[in-house]
Amino acid sequence: MKRVSILGATGSIGTQTLDVIRLNRDKFMLEAISVGENIDSLRKIIAEFNPKLVSVKHEKDVKKLKDEFNDVLFTSGDNGLIDVATYDADILVTAILGSVGLVPTLRAIEQGKKIGLANKETLVAAGDIVMSHAKKYNAEIIPVDSEHSAIFQCLNGEDLKTVKTLIITASGGSFRDLTRDELKSVTKKDALNHPNWSMGQKITIDSATMMNKGLEVIEAHHLFNMNAENIKTLIHRESIIHSMVEFNDNSIMAQIGNSDMRTAIQYALTYPTRIEKNNPLDIHELSTLNFEPMDFNRFKMIQFAYDALKIGGTMPAIMNAANEYAVEKFLNDEITFLEIEDIVESRMNEHTVIEHPDLDTILYYDKLYKEDWRS
Amino acid sequence: MKRVSILGATGSIGTQTLDVIRLNRDKFMLEAISVGENIDSLRKIIAEFNPKLVSVKHEKDVKKLKDEFNDVLFTSGDNGLIDVATYDADILVTAILGSVGLVPTLRAIEQGKKIGLANKETLVAAGDIVMSHAKKYNAEIIPVDSEHSAIFQCLNGEDLKTVKTLIITASGGSFRDLTRDELKSVTKKDALNHPNWSMGQKITIDSATMMNKGLEVIEAHHLFNMNAENIKTLIHRESIIHSMVEFNDNSIMAQIGNSDMRTAIQYALTYPTRIEKNNPLDIHELSTLNFEPMDFNRFKMIQFAYDALKIGGTMPAIMNAANEYAVEKFLNDEITFLEIEDIVESRMNEHTVIEHPDLDTILYYDKLYKEDWRS
Repeated sequence: MKRVSILGATGSIGTQTLDVIRLNRDKFMLEAISVGENIDSLRKIIAEFNPKLVSVKHEKDVKKLKDEFNDVLFTSGDNGLIDVATYDADILVTAILGSVGLVPTLRAIEQGKKIGLANKETLVAAGDIVMSHAKKYNAEIIPVDSEHSAIFQCLNGEDLKTVKTLIITASGGSFRDLTRDELKSVTKKDALNHPNWSMGQKITIDSATMMNKGLEVIEAHHLFNMNAENIKTLIHRESIIHSMVEFNDNSIMAQIGNSDMRTAIQYALTYPTRIEKNNPLDIHELSTLNFEPMDFNRFKMIQFAYDALKIGGTMPAIMNAANEYAVEKFLNDEITFLEIEDIVESRMNEHTVIEHPDLDTILYYDKLYKEDWRS
Repeated sequence: MKRVSILGATGSIGTQTLDVIRLNRDKFMLEAISVGENIDSLRKIIAEFNPKLVSVKHEKDVKKLKDEFNDVLFTSGDNGLIDVATYDADILVTAILGSVGLVPTLRAIEQGKKIGLANKETLVAAGDIVMSHAKKYNAEIIPVDSEHSAIFQCLNGEDLKTVKTLIITASGGSFRDLTRDELKSVTKKDALNHPNWSMGQKITIDSATMMNKGLEVIEAHHLFNMNAENIKTLIHRESIIHSMVEFNDNSIMAQIGNSDMRTAIQYALTYPTRIEKNNPLDIHELSTLNFEPMDFNRFKMIQFAYDALKIGGTMPAIMNAANEYAVEKFLNDEITFLEIEDIVESRMNEHTVIEHPDLDTILYYDKLYKEDWRS
């Protein structure tokens, strides 16, 4: 029986992690979770899974909950996230969105915990710190993103010295068939209609701008210790091949499956073995898989991400913060789709890079670049 | 420095194994080889690689060779094959064609040798004996066929209990676009024109009849201990995905590369690591991969192979022997293309299966079913 904790239990990844636990109650039990403000969903989760520790965003919610659930320990705020992250469990799934996941993840790493990492921003903003921390404390980090899970599976059993290229596939997102000119008039509703994957709003917008793929390139750099020039991206409309690894003997290993995030989540929970799962891809339904080169002019955001990775220092954190800021503006109908790019580009251009930033510096800039400027 | 021996050094796989050694003289040296009657090629191999032991088919060739190459040990005939197979080397590549490779392979296994297995007939005719022998003597068998190498690579690092299905891809061979009616008039020249792979004559005809894929299914059954119903075949015209493994969590791992047998050969020589190789597949040249279900009515031979595997006992050996016999007839312009199928089918129908045959029984029937009957 594996004891699982989740940071961000009511989000898209959190909910799907609970699905995996629900279908395998003989193998997993829920130990500790954090949620934000979605107290109604939390009530259902507690009733169903009976976790031992629960953290909520606001202290005010704790009092009511204590009365309702006597045998659950409640905590709240930033410290609550750390309480959940460091709670005694076999694996912590970091499904919380944004840079708020960074400090709790570092605290879990300091305890040598196994981490199923779904919080991209942790690695994008502070990958050097997180990975050197993981090495120092011997904490195993298992990626939960479908692309990084695919790469992780392709590397399984391999001699890492023989890896030549990581090949991250990209569906192209909601607007893959539109020209830049046509992008001028797209709406929020259009952007949220992803062709293949069912995901949260932020990541769905990031897919449409291709920033999601850019974040994944930076994530892959940190997770697998590969240089930017050895991480390639490839448009693959069907999202059937989730990613690939090319080795020095020109063999390419690929991981294939349907567009179900729960496969990657379950793999992180069961690694190094696997367990049965419903909903297979019928290989005989496969007919055609298409691949196209990435167009860095059409998808400017992925170019920004490669630039940020090559520049290094605080730049990836700045790019990420500016993107989080801009996507929120777009979701609030305050800016147009293409203005997301403009904001990220201009904030990156204005930033003077600080090399080898410490955690406080990263958190300072992360906060700063998520604020309104000169508006 | 790995010491390599080769059974069948002048055939297609043998020649390509020598290519791999030639390009990596700092990593491999040639210890012992067998050749058949191709003494001219042998002379060049000896001059270039200076092996310590050489076996030829006919004793009469030994005397001339001894005078020419003083520091090489020569041997001949069936015992010569065993001499090469059991010579002190780090790995033996069994690239010899047909059931003649069976006994030498068993002798090498008895010495606990690592074997790069390219001789399909060994496993098809006597897979139970070979694999139980390998287990008993702790001999590692690494497949050299591109499909089985792909599966072997997909299984690397995995928990074998979690394997659900092996998916062997098939290009479809020279005649994949012809109807059965159109097959009536095809010529030997047509059949030898494989769309993707450069291989020997026998295997190219086997590709055209799809018997090659049938033999591979039986081979996969023995190599990976999988039942017939868990081994699937899929037409994949481009031969880019060399084969796949589906796990119980619905993840499918695939090995991808260009149609260069040397990748699989080199992998067998370097496993568990890899070394650099020229001639990469440019992933950005990938555009479309197509898949079609196998048509067992169109390709009757693969149905025969599944039948033989399910029947078991001597039946796979009989099918293989009848096929070797028929393909030779076809290559000698004695029968038409579709008569290859007829011969295999009728000899399988006439055979009364012997269960759990010993080696002598298999060799007896192998010889018998390669002879002319009632002609």
